[in-house]
Amino acid sequence: MLVLGGLGFIGSNLAIKLCELGARVTIVDAMLPQYGGNLKNIESVKDKIDINYSDIRDTDSLGHLVRGIDMIFSLAGQTSHIESMSDPITDLDINCRSQLSLLESCRKFNPNVNILYASTRQVYGKPQYLPVDENHPTSPVDVNGINKIAAESYYTLYAKVYGMKCVSLRLTNTYGPRQHMHGAKQGFVSIFIRKALSGEEIQIFGDGNFRRDFNYIDDVVNACMLAIGSPSLTKQTYNLGSDQHYTILEFVTILRKYCEFSYKFIPFPPEHKAIDIGDYYADFSLFHNETGWKPVVSLEDGLKNTVDYFHEHAKHYW
Amino acid sequence: MLVLGGLGFIGSNLAIKLCELGARVTIVDAMLPQYGGNLKNIESVKDKIDINYSDIRDTDSLGHLVRGIDMIFSLAGQTSHIESMSDPITDLDINCRSQLSLLESCRKFNPNVNILYASTRQVYGKPQYLPVDENHPTSPVDVNGINKIAAESYYTLYAKVYGMKCVSLRLTNTYGPRQHMHGAKQGFVSIFIRKALSGEEIQIFGDGNFRRDFNYIDDVVNACMLAIGSPSLTKQTYNLGSDQHYTILEFVTILRKYCEFSYKFIPFPPEHKAIDIGDYYADFSLFHNETGWKPVVSLEDGLKNTVDYFHEHAKHYW
Repeated sequence: MLVLGGLGFIGSNLAIKLCELGARVTIVDAMLPQYGGNLKNIESVKDKIDINYSDIRDTDSLGHLVRGIDMIFSLAGQTSHIESMSDPITDLDINCRSQLSLLESCRKFNPNVNILYASTRQVYGKPQYLPVDENHPTSPVDVNGINKIAAESYYTLYAKVYGMKCVSLRLTNTYGPRQHMHGAKQGFVSIFIRKALSGEEIQIFGDGNFRRDFNYIDDVVNACMLAIGSPSLTKQTYNLGSDQHYTILEFVTILRKYCEFSYKFIPFPPEHKAIDIGDYYADFSLFHNETGWKPVVSLEDGLKNTVDYFHEHAKHYW
Repeated sequence: MLVLGGLGFIGSNLAIKLCELGARVTIVDAMLPQYGGNLKNIESVKDKIDINYSDIRDTDSLGHLVRGIDMIFSLAGQTSHIESMSDPITDLDINCRSQLSLLESCRKFNPNVNILYASTRQVYGKPQYLPVDENHPTSPVDVNGINKIAAESYYTLYAKVYGMKCVSLRLTNTYGPRQHMHGAKQGFVSIFIRKALSGEEIQIFGDGNFRRDFNYIDDVVNACMLAIGSPSLTKQTYNLGSDQHYTILEFVTILRKYCEFSYKFIPFPPEHKAIDIGDYYADFSLFHNETGWKPVVSLEDGLKNTVDYFHEHAKHYW
């Protein structure tokens, strides 16, 4: 099986799990600077895994790699909302054009392959109601959200028109070991943990009362494995989420159980304010009802594991 | 002002009208083979108009052309639903990537420009109710629809986040003089008229009972001029449409008033069936209420004008 973006956060955790289960895994990763690809991530399985260094924007190599494969986890992406505004064309090329190119390669060379696509809650934009279910209108607030909708729509279309086996999961805040910690590409969780472990002061935008749901990486990996090729699924698109949601301030309070740091409140920077979505948490009952999946790792346990991991391996991540 | 795609169907009719009103018009057109660009279209104003031959996929020339301009009509596009499936990457590059690139150029070099974007009813997919208003969910049935939604969303986003003056019109079946008549890129109207005037038999898919709305080109040109930069508009996206709708068979019956031809019914070809949307007609009351626009040319008069035009100029069009 192929894991696109397999040296990144979710991809590497998934690749390790697949290896442990005895699967033959090929990782495809472009190791773009600052995009989260990190060989440290797969150190524990490096002798059991093939790594192909190529960029999903490279149509020819992708067309070669998809042949004869039974499953493709499409996890490579540009994840920063802010950078999708400062460099929208790169976001489009990676998050939109490459996904269509992947689907075309599969349609031509491997139409029976099972594909899982990692989509995002960002497609909904600012929630009109809570919790947000899959029928909520999509109204993205940034270029990243627009491009992720287009990509997800390609997967759904290829499933409907060509009968291809594609499913998209709309991920919410995923966190855990092997997360990209450099810069701000994977949201506030990574920034907070890095600052906390570095002894820097954490800055909370606004009053910290925005409410979010969080999924620990192991729960997301399980969801990906349950979803791909599952005969019990009736749709092409599902939310992940959690029954527990927390304000940013509650998140910080839990994080302070595991590391010492100070924090302060600051006004929203304008470039964040322009694309902020306010409260968000998902209704994931559709996916739960069809697969039985639900998150089993609490935020307390998940954050403890995360802090422990980065405490030990900090030098590889920042 | 700039008219992108100005040698094509809608672009040329608009450029001629703008010229007649005394505007200084620059057309940008790549003259892609089979895409409808035709110098015959602007013959009547060729000495009053500047033509710049370049492709909207060319970011650098676009970045130069947008400077110092007060209005941009963004009408260049790949319009064939069928070709968006057989060559989806080209559809993406023209209909999606180039629009984002245009917006980026304007944001950097001319943020106060007024932009009109020609979107399409195709964004809705198969109607869930009729008439289709702007709140109808978008659920495109082909790659063209997905890419047009993305493009329209970029325009809306740039208006909201950067305060840029963008408006999108969702066009329905536009027809009239200067329509692209070669091949099947502009839908069944052009195919029927070409066959009718060439004495070929018209093939109607299914039973011909699908219902559609039609806008004559002059009405669409008026809508574009009313919409761009209008201070009375409160939204970023509007339907065009008509109070009159017709089945395909009724359309053929009217066409037979102006030219002689035979027709027969054939089953839907599978590639058409897979992406067909059934009945469609739009609710355009939002645009009517805010601008006063409504179509004034009947299908009878419009088809007569169209048949007369192509009867006289056939050799330039097929």
